[in-house]
Amino acid sequence: MPDVPETTRISQYAPAEQRAASEVPAASGFPGLITRENEPQNLEFPFPSLAGRLTPTSQFYIRSHFPIPDLSVEGWRLTINGAVEHELTLTYDELRQLPATTVSATLECAGNGRARLAPKPKGLLWEQGAVGNAEWTGVPLTVLLARAGVKAEAIEVVFEGADRGEINEDPKSPGAIHFARSLPLAKAQQGEVLVVYAMNGQPLPPEHGFPVRLVVPGWYGMASIKWLTTITVSTVPFDGYWQTIEYAYWQRTQGHPTMTPVAEMQVKAEIARPMLHEALAAGVPYRVHGAAWTGEGAIAKVEVSTDGGGTWQPATLLEQDVPFTWRLWEYHWAPAAAGRHKLLARATDEQGQTQPLEHSKDRRTYMINRVASVEVLVQ
Amino acid sequence: MPDVPETTRISQYAPAEQRAASEVPAASGFPGLITRENEPQNLEFPFPSLAGRLTPTSQFYIRSHFPIPDLSVEGWRLTINGAVEHELTLTYDELRQLPATTVSATLECAGNGRARLAPKPKGLLWEQGAVGNAEWTGVPLTVLLARAGVKAEAIEVVFEGADRGEINEDPKSPGAIHFARSLPLAKAQQGEVLVVYAMNGQPLPPEHGFPVRLVVPGWYGMASIKWLTTITVSTVPFDGYWQTIEYAYWQRTQGHPTMTPVAEMQVKAEIARPMLHEALAAGVPYRVHGAAWTGEGAIAKVEVSTDGGGTWQPATLLEQDVPFTWRLWEYHWAPAAAGRHKLLARATDEQGQTQPLEHSKDRRTYMINRVASVEVLVQ
Repeated sequence: MPDVPETTRISQYAPAEQRAASEVPAASGFPGLITRENEPQNLEFPFPSLAGRLTPTSQFYIRSHFPIPDLSVEGWRLTINGAVEHELTLTYDELRQLPATTVSATLECAGNGRARLAPKPKGLLWEQGAVGNAEWTGVPLTVLLARAGVKAEAIEVVFEGADRGEINEDPKSPGAIHFARSLPLAKAQQGEVLVVYAMNGQPLPPEHGFPVRLVVPGWYGMASIKWLTTITVSTVPFDGYWQTIEYAYWQRTQGHPTMTPVAEMQVKAEIARPMLHEALAAGVPYRVHGAAWTGEGAIAKVEVSTDGGGTWQPATLLEQDVPFTWRLWEYHWAPAAAGRHKLLARATDEQGQTQPLEHSKDRRTYMINRVASVEVLVQ
Repeated sequence: MPDVPETTRISQYAPAEQRAASEVPAASGFPGLITRENEPQNLEFPFPSLAGRLTPTSQFYIRSHFPIPDLSVEGWRLTINGAVEHELTLTYDELRQLPATTVSATLECAGNGRARLAPKPKGLLWEQGAVGNAEWTGVPLTVLLARAGVKAEAIEVVFEGADRGEINEDPKSPGAIHFARSLPLAKAQQGEVLVVYAMNGQPLPPEHGFPVRLVVPGWYGMASIKWLTTITVSTVPFDGYWQTIEYAYWQRTQGHPTMTPVAEMQVKAEIARPMLHEALAAGVPYRVHGAAWTGEGAIAKVEVSTDGGGTWQPATLLEQDVPFTWRLWEYHWAPAAAGRHKLLARATDEQGQTQPLEHSKDRRTYMINRVASVEVLVQ
C-alpha cells in the first residue's frame, strides 16, 4: 500500500473529536434549517446565524436530488473499476483501515443565491445559506487510485452515488438514473480530495451521504457525490445528465457558447448580519460580518460599502487562512442617518479575481457570485 | 356623516403610539426577512424568531405581485363608484379626517406552507412565515360605504390596487392587469374591515401598501388589497384573475368541483421553536412554542405531540383571546431519549374545526393548514 500522499494544503484544524466541547461553535440565533423543498429534502443553513468557522452538522445545508438511499455499513461496498490495473471492491471496514486524513472544506451549492435573481428562475430558490464549512475525515482518493493502478490513457474519474430516481419534470430526462459526475484526472489526484466517512468528527448522517461520500474541496458541492458506491476511471469524457443538462454553463470560445460542467467555486463574500430589512439604530455601532470563500485559492481581501457601492472600505479578515475554508470577516459601522441603506460586500482572491455586479446569463442559474446587497432600515 | 359603526370584535390593544417603547417587541434571533423572490419582492418572516404577539413592521412578510407602485400622499386619490348613490373621490387628507379605529389582525398568505408540500409545487415556496400580526389603523369601510350610499341591488364590492403588470408565465393571462379582488357585501359591511393608513402606529411603508390599503381581518392576505385606489360596488359577481386562475380552489357540490375564491383563513398552529433539525439536549427541559390562528372565530385549544402523532398533550394558550389575532402558546418538554423526534402541533377553534393530517388537492396550493411537523435531533 502506498503512503498517504502529500496533503500540504490540508487544514491545520484539529479533528473535532480532539477539541474541547467549548470550542465547538454553538448554534445561535436560528438553530435549524430553512426548507426550500420538502421531498426530496433541500434545506438551507440560515446564514444570518453564522457564529463560527465550523458549521454545526445539524445546520449544514442539505441538497438532495432523490430520496435518501437506505444504506447500511454492513451492506455497503465501494467498487473501483474502469481503466485500472486491479479492479477493487472494499467493505466499510476495509476502507476504515486505510490511512485517513482530515480536511476542512467549505462546500457551496452551485445554485446558491438563486432566490435573489430576477425573474424568478426555475430550480431550487436558495438565498445565501446553501453553503457550509465542515471538517471531513476519510481516505485520500489518491490512496485508492494508487491501489487500483490508474492506466496511462485515463483522463477522468466518474463517481456514482446510490441515490436514484426519475427526473419527471424534465422532458430531456434520460429516465431513471443515479446521481453521477466526473472529475478530470488532475483534480482527482489532488491530495485534498477525500473518500469521507466522518463529518465534524462524527459518522456521516444519512442526509450527508452515510456511510461514505466524496468531498472535493474547492469545487461546488455537486462534485462531492454522496452515498458513493462506484468509482470508474475513464478514458473518454463523461457527459452525464448532471454535467450537461444540469450543473453546466456556457463558456464562450471565440464567441461560440460551449457547454461546460460547473466546477471550481467562484470568489464570493456573503453578509450574515445585518439581515435583509433588519432594523438598526442610528448612531449605534454595528458589527457587519460574514464569510468569504473562493475555489482553490485564498481570499486576499473583503470590502464593504454602506452607500450602495459609492465607496468601499476594507473589512477585517479574522483568524488565519486555511486552505479550502471560508474566511470570516467583520466591519464596524455606525449608521449615521435614518432611512434605508444598502450594504454591499465583495471579496477578491489572491489571483485578483473579484465579484461581478451582475450575474451573467451564460452561467444560467449556477455560479452566482455577483456582489451581494442587503437593504437595512436605520431608525 | 354617520357614526363609526359598532366594532365590538375589534382589538383591545392600545395603538402602538400609546405604548411604552419597552412594550414594543424587539426583533430576536433572526431580525430580518427571508427571500423567496427578489423581483417582485416576496419576503418571509423567519417564524422561529417569533418573540411576541405583535410582528415588528420590519419583519412583517411581504407579498408583491408586481413592482411596488410609486405613490405619494399628494397624488393619491380613492374613488368609490359603481352601484352607489354618490360617487366619491377622497384625498389622503380627507380620508385622515374621517373617524378612525385600530384593529389587531393576523394576516396569512393563502400559500403559506407551500414549501412543505411534495412534489414541489409551482408558485412561491413559503415555509411557515408568510404570516404576521399587526395593528392596523384606518377608516372602517362601512363609513365610506355609508357616505357613498350602497344601492339595494349591490352584492359585492371590488377593490383595485395601483400595482399592475403582465403575467407572462401564465398562458391564461389576460395581459397587463391591476391587482383586484372582491368581497361579498356582507363581509364588506363588517366593522373590522378597514381602509388603513397606519401599521403598528406608523405610516404604512411602501411595501405594505403606502399610502393606503385595505385590511380584511379573518381572511387570507390576498383580500387586503395594497396601494388601494378604487372601490367599486357591484351588482354582479366579480370573477377576476385573482379569484379564478389564482387564489381560488375547488369546492365539491354534489361531487362536482366548483371554482371558489379563497376567503377565510383556516385554523392552524405553527411551531416556532424548536426549528427544523434543531439539536436539543436529552433530559434538558425545552420550551416548545408557537402561534395559532383561525378565520373569524377564536382558538379553543392547541395540542402538541412529541412522538409523531401517537399521543397528544395540551399546550398552554398565553394571554387572552383578541379577535382576528393569533394566540401564542407554549408546551414544556423534556426530551428523554436521544435520536430523531417528530414534534407536531394542532389547533382547534371554537367551532370545533381542526387541522387535517393531509393537504387536500382540491385546495390546490392554497389554504395549507395540515398539521405541521418538525423533526429535531436530541443528543
